[in-house]
Amino acid sequence: MSANRSLAALFTPRSVAVVGASADLRRLGGIPIRLMRDHAFPGALYPINPNREEIGGFRCYPDVASLPETPDLALFATPREGVLAALRQCAGRGVKCAAVFTSGFGETGAEGAALQEEMARIARGAGMRLLGPNCMGVIHTRSRLMATFTISIREGELLSPGPVALVTHSGALAACMISDLHDAGTGLSAMASLGNEADVDFAECVDHFVDDPDTRVICGYLESVRDGRRLRSAAGRALAAGKPIVLLKSGATEAGARAALSHTAALATPHGVFAAFARQYGVALCRSYQELIETADFLARAPRTRGRRLGVLSFSGGAGSLVADAAVEEGFALPPLAEATCARLRAALPPYAAVRNPVDLVSVMVSKPGESPIAEAGAAVRDDPEVDAVVLVMGVYHHVAAQVAKELKGLFADSAKPLACCWMAPQRAELQALRKAGVPVFEDYNRAVRALAAAVSFEEAAAGEAVPKPSSDPARRDRALRLIAGASKSPEGMLPPAACRALLELYGIRQPAQAEASYAEEAVAVWRGMGGPVALKVIAEGLVHKSDAGGVSLGLDGEGAVRAAAARLLGLAPGARLLVQGMVVGGEVELLAGLSRDPAFGLCVTGGIGGIFVEVFEEAARRLPPFGEKEAGAMLRGLRGAKLLQGVRGRPAVNAAAAAQVLSRLSEMAAELGEVLAELDINPLIVTQDDALAVDARVRVV
Amino acid sequence: MSANRSLAALFTPRSVAVVGASADLRRLGGIPIRLMRDHAFPGALYPINPNREEIGGFRCYPDVASLPETPDLALFATPREGVLAALRQCAGRGVKCAAVFTSGFGETGAEGAALQEEMARIARGAGMRLLGPNCMGVIHTRSRLMATFTISIREGELLSPGPVALVTHSGALAACMISDLHDAGTGLSAMASLGNEADVDFAECVDHFVDDPDTRVICGYLESVRDGRRLRSAAGRALAAGKPIVLLKSGATEAGARAALSHTAALATPHGVFAAFARQYGVALCRSYQELIETADFLARAPRTRGRRLGVLSFSGGAGSLVADAAVEEGFALPPLAEATCARLRAALPPYAAVRNPVDLVSVMVSKPGESPIAEAGAAVRDDPEVDAVVLVMGVYHHVAAQVAKELKGLFADSAKPLACCWMAPQRAELQALRKAGVPVFEDYNRAVRALAAAVSFEEAAAGEAVPKPSSDPARRDRALRLIAGASKSPEGMLPPAACRALLELYGIRQPAQAEASYAEEAVAVWRGMGGPVALKVIAEGLVHKSDAGGVSLGLDGEGAVRAAAARLLGLAPGARLLVQGMVVGGEVELLAGLSRDPAFGLCVTGGIGGIFVEVFEEAARRLPPFGEKEAGAMLRGLRGAKLLQGVRGRPAVNAAAAAQVLSRLSEMAAELGEVLAELDINPLIVTQDDALAVDARVRVV
Repeated sequence: MSANRSLAALFTPRSVAVVGASADLRRLGGIPIRLMRDHAFPGALYPINPNREEIGGFRCYPDVASLPETPDLALFATPREGVLAALRQCAGRGVKCAAVFTSGFGETGAEGAALQEEMARIARGAGMRLLGPNCMGVIHTRSRLMATFTISIREGELLSPGPVALVTHSGALAACMISDLHDAGTGLSAMASLGNEADVDFAECVDHFVDDPDTRVICGYLESVRDGRRLRSAAGRALAAGKPIVLLKSGATEAGARAALSHTAALATPHGVFAAFARQYGVALCRSYQELIETADFLARAPRTRGRRLGVLSFSGGAGSLVADAAVEEGFALPPLAEATCARLRAALPPYAAVRNPVDLVSVMVSKPGESPIAEAGAAVRDDPEVDAVVLVMGVYHHVAAQVAKELKGLFADSAKPLACCWMAPQRAELQALRKAGVPVFEDYNRAVRALAAAVSFEEAAAGEAVPKPSSDPARRDRALRLIAGASKSPEGMLPPAACRALLELYGIRQPAQAEASYAEEAVAVWRGMGGPVALKVIAEGLVHKSDAGGVSLGLDGEGAVRAAAARLLGLAPGARLLVQGMVVGGEVELLAGLSRDPAFGLCVTGGIGGIFVEVFEEAARRLPPFGEKEAGAMLRGLRGAKLLQGVRGRPAVNAAAAAQVLSRLSEMAAELGEVLAELDINPLIVTQDDALAVDARVRVV
Repeated sequence: MSANRSLAALFTPRSVAVVGASADLRRLGGIPIRLMRDHAFPGALYPINPNREEIGGFRCYPDVASLPETPDLALFATPREGVLAALRQCAGRGVKCAAVFTSGFGETGAEGAALQEEMARIARGAGMRLLGPNCMGVIHTRSRLMATFTISIREGELLSPGPVALVTHSGALAACMISDLHDAGTGLSAMASLGNEADVDFAECVDHFVDDPDTRVICGYLESVRDGRRLRSAAGRALAAGKPIVLLKSGATEAGARAALSHTAALATPHGVFAAFARQYGVALCRSYQELIETADFLARAPRTRGRRLGVLSFSGGAGSLVADAAVEEGFALPPLAEATCARLRAALPPYAAVRNPVDLVSVMVSKPGESPIAEAGAAVRDDPEVDAVVLVMGVYHHVAAQVAKELKGLFADSAKPLACCWMAPQRAELQALRKAGVPVFEDYNRAVRALAAAVSFEEAAAGEAVPKPSSDPARRDRALRLIAGASKSPEGMLPPAACRALLELYGIRQPAQAEASYAEEAVAVWRGMGGPVALKVIAEGLVHKSDAGGVSLGLDGEGAVRAAAARLLGLAPGARLLVQGMVVGGEVELLAGLSRDPAFGLCVTGGIGGIFVEVFEEAARRLPPFGEKEAGAMLRGLRGAKLLQGVRGRPAVNAAAAAQVLSRLSEMAAELGEVLAELDINPLIVTQDDALAVDARVRVV
């Protein structure tokens, strides 16, 4: 049974019981009954309350056992003390899914967590799915299912149906989203409030919404990732299906993560890895709640985007400059307009309007009341073949607000290219009417630009190779596993140097010419065979930080020098051996590359400028594996220190493609050996004009 | 006559003429007449129109010459062709100030610029002040002066008076600001739309508003700085007067600057220098238009801020996490709450609410309709002695919106500490009523946090030494000027090395032991006298980049080595001399420090990590001079590479205080010699454990 099928009882149940139903329809146990009644839920609704005959027009039952049929879905609004007993009853009766509103479980401490684990056990044992506890329930608009105690819908109003599915770790934020998307006329296809995620989790809901025909955009608030593998799979399916995911994520700072932790009692995902996930899968990570709402609305309604060439029209030259600033920061270009476009603009605008990109619409609607150039000017820029998308910024037009609204509506409806309308200081009634009519309107030009950037990034992720493709080489994997199994590990799981080198070699990661030696004369012989300067490095169990212990001698060239250094290093520890390694030369740049384990996403790849740079700037890029060399190249180019690779201060450019290949190979290793590798460090990875060589590597297994 | 007095006729005229008055009160030449009539301007109003007897109830005159009195202020709504003639009439009649709405001057090209220059000449010649052209005029609320053609006030409404003065390079953005501050109930004290700034400029208006008793906050949109010295002076006076300046600035990117340029035809100020100015003077630089409006509103109404310890209460644990993320990013800490605070919170909140910072108010208003813990919980956190300011985030409370509004109002009114209220997904009617009642309410928690940060930064700037104090040493200045005058300069204005060294010495900037030598044996003698390794550097006219020309030999220690290097260097150019310089040793870090000329602000100080870092990361900090060593230290600590100074990879920390002293001394030099220095480079400034030494310096004079 696939995950999708298993959530059917949650989103499209034929019958719903409300355990702990309240006759006060404004309370937790009463609101779902009122909402289901008002929205005319077509299935059966069973309030459970031993003290009532009827609630909200529905016949009451004393308990789940006495119901005339087994409900698909049971909602729990009972006090904490009664939850377990009622849940056991549901499990015994064969209820398919329980959604528990009640708080006081995993989010409060050890005692609550034990109760929550018991709930999960009961549900698992009965094959019953469990949403929550501490959640706000679910909505599925087409099924008229309002299995929630949200107060975001004003009494007497019905929820607007629409293309956005909500999935969220915060019920209170879900309430805001429902209210704002309702008021904006965007509307909802569905909502899942996850609470403490004892069973049903974020990724599973996303996956479900990918297959929901009413959903075009998945919009969520996320505190931590319970199952990174499942989230990657769901996001990959959403990308392939052309359904953008738009997220607000807390925990970027330690303080935020601490607050989030105590809220859902889950482990926060380090933000950098999450950002890498979002980048690779085209997930829009929003900077604010408002941006989340406006971006979801825009992506649900706008045509798909083709590129980053932006045409801007503004009611104000000043606002045009501000939009240009924001656009360049988000990676857009503002191309010059074609001559035909300029001619159309000159015909539409007064002679003192400067015809360029951004177009300043000047105050023509003041000087010529009743005449508006907006529609024609907007169409001219939109039709320019050099323009992929348009931002149109309007300002104060109280006296002609209806006309502005009409022109925006016409422009948006006609446009095959994305058109982000922004209306600053709007006449609010006209703005609301415009939104209700299906035109997404931003009130902030930054958000308009960021939403367009989200749209383009989605297309780029869908078209590119950033999304990991499961491309594993079983034979290589087997050899690597045998190599690791056969190596003698330290108590911490460190592989011996020879095994590390063999593992890199197996994955085609090149290393300097090197050989081990057990005594000084052997080192001298190796040096002689190499025909150039060498480094000597001590190999001794328990000596991990060789450099700090004085266990490395560099640039030795000459019999006496090699012999003396070898003797000194061999004396550092009993049983010590030596690695003799050819020195790497040629305008080199030191990188570091490695694998580290993220609690949610597992092994991820890290790459950065090494040496003093990483210590001073603490900068490294991360990616989820596996990925190709093109994405690895983008990863390196995104580093602030990327200029080093191109050569600065008269130094030659080094072979960045070879370095990218190493990262890509590491990502394949991570994908194939994710179960056995704990971490891997290549430091330094020396990149020369010709090659990228792993000079030193450490590998720890789980 | 001070600048303030000279703008009196602009903001508080006793009589106003409207040249080019229109009988259509919706048009450019009619709107001011309608607005002045509706707002009951108490002075005389004279429409000028030869074809009318009367407009809007005011008697018309055919021209300025035939007016019964000389008006203080003349507004120009005439077509471009008629402006110059009418302006000459005003000048002849002795009009004190002209405000020109008409477009088509400096913003359109060379021809328009020539016309504009002629306008400025006419005005200057007659001692008449000129606002614009291409401007939207002025408002002064207390004088009921509405000398503007803005359409931001709906017909039938009167402008709300209030504490915010607007000054702006964009009339269209001013219209938005007027509308939004009016609708928010904040209100305006005054507005100045500057247009092309042919005469009256941004800084002068800011300076005027500092002395305006009705103004508490100065809020503006700025494209470029016409006169940096005047802006610094005005901002310094505003800081001293406790009146925050809140700005939106375009031109952060080249594309934005280009758009801004064509808009106001002025030179864009490089953004980094402007950001330095804003930081030093406590000017809030906003990231968006909405942030500008909400920050101005908040600063106008909130009590002054004492520190960066933030208490957060939220309707949602999720929103609390997001606020914590934003707060930490803006430099706030979220301290643990005192035991007494926790006790108050436990008494006010349900048992399952987690009592910590941020406080999660949970869904108590749902589970117990009618009971609200907001006021008591908010007061508890506000009263905590460890808390300097409070953010209170509310969400969807449609059913109890009136009560939420009441509690926010009470909390805000009672609070001696800044309290930033944020209401997400609000009931809009209640929100509007709350704002009209004087409570600044944010709709975005990021903006709430950023506004609090602006408030704190203002206090910090007022308390600190970041604001340049004019502390010049006339004797030192005289000696420096004599030194520069007496030196022989290159055609580009470069000072000879000896003069550069003398100038640094005069300002107490230490240098390595060094002496010049004309022949090899002299160099050997100098080396011998120094008693340690030396560097030899060639000195030859026209040889600026010594290193690139092979003109530097480092680490020479020994008679033969010095002699050989000296001979080689002396052969590089006819008439070459040598600098013999003691090598600097001791765990050093290379910085660069210098002065460069900003088109608006003049000489400013630059400091950064030198060597390969500056080429790879292109990072440097800037400050306006002069400033003290504490501010210089903050400047260095703000660099991303600041860790180098603390010592990394086992290297010792270097003397960062000595480096800060150099920057501070440079800032004094800039303040004293701003008229004669074009640029100065110290590269490298080598910082050792003991000292900071200027190893090489170049100085160019104007």
